[in-house]
Amino acid sequence: MNKHIKRLLNKKIAFVGSESGGQPFIKAMLVSYREGNNIFYFDSNNGSTRAAQWMANPSACVYFYGRPIYRGVMLTGKMEIINDMELKKAHWKRSMKMIYKGGVTDPDYCILKFTTTKGRYYSMFKSEDFEI
Amino acid sequence: MNKHIKRLLNKKIAFVGSESGGQPFIKAMLVSYREGNNIFYFDSNNGSTRAAQWMANPSACVYFYGRPIYRGVMLTGKMEIINDMELKKAHWKRSMKMIYKGGVTDPDYCILKFTTTKGRYYSMFKSEDFEI
Repeated sequence: MNKHIKRLLNKKIAFVGSESGGQPFIKAMLVSYREGNNIFYFDSNNGSTRAAQWMANPSACVYFYGRPIYRGVMLTGKMEIINDMELKKAHWKRSMKMIYKGGVTDPDYCILKFTTTKGRYYSMFKSEDFEI
Repeated sequence: MNKHIKRLLNKKIAFVGSESGGQPFIKAMLVSYREGNNIFYFDSNNGSTRAAQWMANPSACVYFYGRPIYRGVMLTGKMEIINDMELKKAHWKRSMKMIYKGGVTDPDYCILKFTTTKGRYYSMFKSEDFEI
């Protein structure tokens, strides 16, 4: 894995893809936690459209974009919706009270866990697969 | 359409989504031309994975991301692969010779045309549909 890929995988903002009925969807999301280079966590809502889409079809992708010059990494893999209270407590930050009024036990608060299957690196005019 | 949406729709870099076999894919692409607020063109390659995916399933999405603070616009719609020589000549720029060695008649050069069906605007903690 080259240094550009490593740098991209550490970006705070990820563009996250879901699918429903053959239609792709994209949303920018803040990475809340990461484990190694292959597992990424996001905070979300049980009542959200995206959570419902991944519940129905866990296939997902995560794209990190970087400058200077155009570089990107696309990871394909699976998204899980997690409502485990231990994990929620471990991930909870006080500032999240602004979003989840009920605190860590707010029934709408859920954690999304993305696990990478494959990685692809894009630079200006070429692309290549890489090992995760 | 609010001023934030207008500004996002004028971004140079778009995150473009495709789908194949229930798997979503994302790629950052440079907008080459635009018509109004609803049609976006990209330069691509007939031999590319993405062109093949949109040939099989034209469902696509285009996401524009903006700072400060987190803002985004997601457009859903259809992607067409265009090989019309008139349009290619109209869109051709000399610098593209770096990418398409054969020039405007390079058989690998194709134009992608995205036509919006629906728009959705995301700001920090909320989202809303808007008219295109």
